[in-house]
Amino acid sequence: MPVHTFSYIQLFDFTKTIFQEIGCSSADAATATKVLLSADLRGIDSHGVARLSGYVRLWEVQRVNVQPDIKIIHETLSTAVVNGDSGLGLVIAPNAMQIAIDKAKNVGTGWVSVQNSNHFGIASYHAMLALEHDMIGIAFTNASPLVAPTFSVERLLGTNPICVVIPAGEEPPFIADMATTTAANGKLEILQRKNGVAPLGWIQDKNGKSSTDPHELKAGGALLPLGGDREHGSNKGYALGAIVDIFSAVLSGANYGPWVPPFPAYVPMPDEQPGKGIGHFFGAMRVDAFRPADEFRQHMDKWIRRFRTAKTVKGQEKVLIPGDPEREMENERMKNGIPLLTPVINDLKFLAEKFEIKSPNPRKGE
Amino acid sequence: MPVHTFSYIQLFDFTKTIFQEIGCSSADAATATKVLLSADLRGIDSHGVARLSGYVRLWEVQRVNVQPDIKIIHETLSTAVVNGDSGLGLVIAPNAMQIAIDKAKNVGTGWVSVQNSNHFGIASYHAMLALEHDMIGIAFTNASPLVAPTFSVERLLGTNPICVVIPAGEEPPFIADMATTTAANGKLEILQRKNGVAPLGWIQDKNGKSSTDPHELKAGGALLPLGGDREHGSNKGYALGAIVDIFSAVLSGANYGPWVPPFPAYVPMPDEQPGKGIGHFFGAMRVDAFRPADEFRQHMDKWIRRFRTAKTVKGQEKVLIPGDPEREMENERMKNGIPLLTPVINDLKFLAEKFEIKSPNPRKGE
Repeated sequence: MPVHTFSYIQLFDFTKTIFQEIGCSSADAATATKVLLSADLRGIDSHGVARLSGYVRLWEVQRVNVQPDIKIIHETLSTAVVNGDSGLGLVIAPNAMQIAIDKAKNVGTGWVSVQNSNHFGIASYHAMLALEHDMIGIAFTNASPLVAPTFSVERLLGTNPICVVIPAGEEPPFIADMATTTAANGKLEILQRKNGVAPLGWIQDKNGKSSTDPHELKAGGALLPLGGDREHGSNKGYALGAIVDIFSAVLSGANYGPWVPPFPAYVPMPDEQPGKGIGHFFGAMRVDAFRPADEFRQHMDKWIRRFRTAKTVKGQEKVLIPGDPEREMENERMKNGIPLLTPVINDLKFLAEKFEIKSPNPRKGE
Repeated sequence: MPVHTFSYIQLFDFTKTIFQEIGCSSADAATATKVLLSADLRGIDSHGVARLSGYVRLWEVQRVNVQPDIKIIHETLSTAVVNGDSGLGLVIAPNAMQIAIDKAKNVGTGWVSVQNSNHFGIASYHAMLALEHDMIGIAFTNASPLVAPTFSVERLLGTNPICVVIPAGEEPPFIADMATTTAANGKLEILQRKNGVAPLGWIQDKNGKSSTDPHELKAGGALLPLGGDREHGSNKGYALGAIVDIFSAVLSGANYGPWVPPFPAYVPMPDEQPGKGIGHFFGAMRVDAFRPADEFRQHMDKWIRRFRTAKTVKGQEKVLIPGDPEREMENERMKNGIPLLTPVINDLKFLAEKFEIKSPNPRKGE
C-alpha cells in the first residue's frame, strides 16, 4: 500500500489546528496533539493521527465536550476519582496523571480512577509523565468490548491495556505497554487490509472456535485474551483485562464490560449505561518512597544490562527490554518522518477540506 | 498414583508442630501453617504441605531464621520497605500485608516492598487479608529463575505471580492469582510424574526451541512467559514477570533476575547477590477511597453476574470468575479432606520420624 512520510512538525501543526477548529483551547489542542502523535512516533500507528477523524466524528455526534470541566469528585491523601466531563481522553488523562504525581509527591504514591472520559490514545504517553519525577508510572484504560473471556462467545472486555513505566539511571527507562489480548487490534487491522491469515490464538469465530480469518470480528467473532486458549493460559489474559476494567470503571463510576461506549461514532451506544463514559486508572510511585533514588537507579541499570546481554536463541540479535523497539522507532521517525498510508492521508485531506485549512505536505521529494 | 485424604485439622496440627519443632513461636507456626494449608485447600497442591520438608531443609542449612526481627526500614505515609530478617516468607508476608492495610486505613492505599524474605506460599492468602477491610488486595513475589524471557535461552525470571483480589457484595470476591508463565510449574510437575506430553508453548529446550518434553528443565530448558512465543505475545508475559521482579526486589533491595536464591536447599546459592533474600510486593486499596463502598459492591456484583451468565462456547457450562474454581475446591476439601500423593505422605512420615512426633492419619476407612 502506498505510503508518504510527513515531518513531525507538519503533522503537529495540522492536528493541533483541527483540535482548535472543533473548539479546544490552544493548550488542550497542543496536549491532545502531543498524545496522538506520540503513538505515530512510537510506531503504534493504529492509535495516532489515523484516529484524528474518529475524534472529530465523536465531537460531531456530541459525545465529546471540547471544553470540559475536569474535576476531582472524591479523594484521600493517596487517591482521587476524576470526572472527565465527557472531554477528550487525550486531555483528561495527562490531567489525571498529574494528580497522581502530585499525591505521590506528598505521601509516596498517588492513584487516580477516572470516569466520564473518552479514548485516551496510547497509555505509555501518560505513564511516562512520571519519569521526570523519578516515579514509576502506571496507566490502564478500558475500551469498547472486542474480547471474549475464556469459554465465552460474547465480547465483554476491551483490549484493556496495562502500561507500567520504570525509571533507570544511565539506561533508558523500562516501558511496558500492552493490550491484555494475544494481539493488539492494530495488528489485526493490518492483516484485514492485506486479507492475510491470522495465527491461531488471536481470534475466535462467532461460535467460539479458534479462527485464522482476520475479518472474523465483523461476523460476530472476538479477539482472544493473552494466552489464546485455556490450555495456554487465556484465563490469565482474561483476568488481567478484567482487573483493568474494574480498576478503571467499577472504582470510578464509569461504564464497564459490555457497556463501554464504542469509539466509532456510527456504532450505536449500548442500551444500558451503568456508569459515565469510559474509565481509566493511573498510578504514580515515588522511587525514593521505597529506597534512595540513586540506589534504585543503579540496580535498575544492572537489571536492564543483565537481561539485554542474555544469551539469545539462535537467529535473534538480543533480548529486548520492554520499550526498546518503540524508542528506536521514535528516534528514527523524529529524524526521518512519520509514514502514513493512503487511507490515512485521505482522511487528513477530508478534514482539511471540512475545516477549510491546508492539508499537511509530505516531505520534500515525495 | 495412590492417594489418601487427610482432614484439614489433622494436617493443621501436624504442620504447626513441625514449625514449632524448628523453633517458630506458636503464633508464627500457626500463621505459616494457615498459609501453607490454604494452598492445599484451594487445590494449588504444589504450594502446600508438599513443600513442608523443603522449608525444614532451608532451616537446616541456616537459610531460614525462625525468630526473625521483621521491621520497617524505610517508609512514607503510603509506602514501606520491610526487612524480613531471613524469616519464613509464610510469616513475613501476612505481616507486610498488614502494614499495607494499616497505611490504606490512614491515607487510602498502602504499598509495601519486602527484602530478605523466603518463599511465601500462595499469593492469594496474603492479598485476601484485605477483603475483610473492604479493600482491594495485591500480592507479587519473585522466585528463583526458571523462565526464559522472549528470545533468551537463559533462565532469568521466576514464575513471578500476580495476585489481585477485589471484594464484591453478595457475590464472592474476584480472586486472580496467576504465574506470569503460560503454565505454572506445578502443572509441569504433574506431567513429569506421568511422563506426559506438555502442550507446545509451555517450555523450551536448552537452545530455545519449543518442546513438549516436561523434563526439559532438567536439561537446561526453561518455562515460557505467558503467551508462549513472540507471535502469541510472550513479550507481554515476559514484561509482566519483569514488573513483578522489579517491584518485589529492585524497589526493596532484594535479589532479582538470575540472582534470586533457589527454594531447594541442595541447589547452591548464586555466585553473586545484589540484594538480600527474595522479594515481595503488597498493595491494599480502600474501596471507599474511590467511591462509597456500597456503590462499589453493587457494581462489582453486577459485573460478576454479567460475566458469569455470558453465553458460552458449546460444551462449556459457564464463564468463570477468577477465583471460582479455587473456592469450590476449598469448600469441597474442607468438608471431605485434602488428598495427598504417596510421595508427599512419605515426606510427612520422614518429618514425623525426624522430630519424633506422630504422623497424620488418613481419614477413617482409608
